[in-house]
Amino acid sequence: MTQIRTVITGIGSYIPPHIKTNKDFAAQEFYSEDHEQILTPSQEIIEKFRDITGIEERRYAGNEFNTSDMATIAARHAIEDAKIDPETIDQIIVAHNFGNVIKDTIQTDILPSLASRVKHALGIRNPACVAYDILFGCPGWIQGVIHADAFIKAGIAQRCLVVGAEALSRVLDPYDRDSMIFSDGAGATVVEGIDTGESGAGILGSAVQSHCIDEAFYLYMGKSNYPDSDPRVRYIKMKGRKVYEYAIKQVPLAMKSCLDQCGIHVTEVKKFFLHQANEKMDEGFIKVLYKLYGLREVPAEVMPMCIHKLGNSSVATIPTLLDLVKRGILDDHSLNKGDVIMFASVGAGMNINAICYRI
Amino acid sequence: MTQIRTVITGIGSYIPPHIKTNKDFAAQEFYSEDHEQILTPSQEIIEKFRDITGIEERRYAGNEFNTSDMATIAARHAIEDAKIDPETIDQIIVAHNFGNVIKDTIQTDILPSLASRVKHALGIRNPACVAYDILFGCPGWIQGVIHADAFIKAGIAQRCLVVGAEALSRVLDPYDRDSMIFSDGAGATVVEGIDTGESGAGILGSAVQSHCIDEAFYLYMGKSNYPDSDPRVRYIKMKGRKVYEYAIKQVPLAMKSCLDQCGIHVTEVKKFFLHQANEKMDEGFIKVLYKLYGLREVPAEVMPMCIHKLGNSSVATIPTLLDLVKRGILDDHSLNKGDVIMFASVGAGMNINAICYRI
Repeated sequence: MTQIRTVITGIGSYIPPHIKTNKDFAAQEFYSEDHEQILTPSQEIIEKFRDITGIEERRYAGNEFNTSDMATIAARHAIEDAKIDPETIDQIIVAHNFGNVIKDTIQTDILPSLASRVKHALGIRNPACVAYDILFGCPGWIQGVIHADAFIKAGIAQRCLVVGAEALSRVLDPYDRDSMIFSDGAGATVVEGIDTGESGAGILGSAVQSHCIDEAFYLYMGKSNYPDSDPRVRYIKMKGRKVYEYAIKQVPLAMKSCLDQCGIHVTEVKKFFLHQANEKMDEGFIKVLYKLYGLREVPAEVMPMCIHKLGNSSVATIPTLLDLVKRGILDDHSLNKGDVIMFASVGAGMNINAICYRI
Repeated sequence: MTQIRTVITGIGSYIPPHIKTNKDFAAQEFYSEDHEQILTPSQEIIEKFRDITGIEERRYAGNEFNTSDMATIAARHAIEDAKIDPETIDQIIVAHNFGNVIKDTIQTDILPSLASRVKHALGIRNPACVAYDILFGCPGWIQGVIHADAFIKAGIAQRCLVVGAEALSRVLDPYDRDSMIFSDGAGATVVEGIDTGESGAGILGSAVQSHCIDEAFYLYMGKSNYPDSDPRVRYIKMKGRKVYEYAIKQVPLAMKSCLDQCGIHVTEVKKFFLHQANEKMDEGFIKVLYKLYGLREVPAEVMPMCIHKLGNSSVATIPTLLDLVKRGILDDHSLNKGDVIMFASVGAGMNINAICYRI
């Protein structure tokens, strides 16, 4: 039986070397979005933050490093893992939200696109290797895979490199408690349209949604929480409660719609690789999803997580997590041939997407 | 005969109201990229500039306007022209290079994506309408159409809104002579997968190339030509001669490869809609293309142009030009059912693309 499916044939990630622990925020003064100083002791703020998000540490890129540099290293690892000649890649797709932002500057540099820079750094000469960026919020890496899948299905591409890379440390407001969430990193995958025959491996289906009425500005660029800050300098800002209320309702529905489309029951999914912005929220997604099937108990070890040590690196969280699991670095988790897994993400836009995938 | 092809069913554009004529640059001091003042009288610089580029005037957006605002207006016109219910759109694809840059600031704002903002402004509630941006240099609008075509071919989307919008006036270095090239604007199209039967209307084929070795930084963000300017503030910069030498060689080859793929001879193409960065260069593309077929004479009126009055608005030039021709605003040009036309563009990346299309 011939069955062409889009298969992940290589994976790699880049985890920046600079560790910033929660303790490192102890001397930081925080302000509310109304520019009032928050008088709760920092230690208390940090403990509460940890209880909700699960984040203990996060990683920041080195000063000389840019988002496209992280993207390139992750891409190299994915290409090595796939054991392919880079000159045979049909598309390089890079997902991000802020482009390159040089340390201690505020300008986004996306001229040329990060994909062009990655192709440049990889030294790929083949002009038929098309390089472009997509902007889709935190779900950008999943969306890149969905793009690759569409081009493969359309018969236009056969082998694509999909990278998610972000340096949120360059756009955060240190006076905002939410700044503790954000981190830097990159993850990359090689995906290929191949005949997987009866094994039926590869992408089984996907679901995508954009909610842009009130939701469009739940994540946005805004001025610092510090009083009288320069309004011309803006930072990543989040309406945390709104995001939570929106996501806890919509993400499980989108995940179920993807599973239904594939004829897969939730209990058949061995692992969920979720975008990691907040541990409690991710646990909530799975709980609500199970409830949609009338199930009250979520099995243990269904959700690998690396948010505790890596924070929220936006588009990079899912491919980084998959890389760690595949390399056996997250002890409790492993994947075997035939396992069904699900990727799902939510972020700026607001956008939600999910992919159901058989190993 | 059933034949599903991707067809442009609606088109619209936004031409900003603020005219800046060449004369308006007469008092401007120009500097070279080596930060030396250029002592040639401004009048002479401007005349030479006009002779090469053809540009007499360019348009700038109003102070309160942003790139996504221009994109929204062009999108509205395209939706009206297509006579569709916006809630039936499957994808909103916005191509640009700098996102929203508020007047008198230097930060790019792409959080959320411009596509999310357009969907927000259009008030589209349907969550299945997926909104994302692509970054592909000046060829971004053509690339958006190629993306829509791929999703239509893959059976994932049926109706897409593809917008190119740019406000280059917000990122130009006034001390650089190249600043006279750049302008603002937006163009939008509705494209749909429809059965065009024996007429064979729609996209006949496309070609795309990315050259990212030396070419990757022919267009880039760099500091002002003004001596001792703040290196942390960067502007759009172009290695003009390199771009010209690269483009005059590669663009006609890509156009021919697209035509060959479609089995169309160059003399069958009624009009070429080229990205307009430089009139002499565009004339050169057509001349070299004809030469590739052993033809020395290029027919008159094969290339509509609006660069004289509108300058180079990046991703917006081609859909704006098509809109003007379809509305009969460019006197010497008209299109009839069955005509074969070609879109082709070159820009940052460096990227080149072309689409062969039957009306």
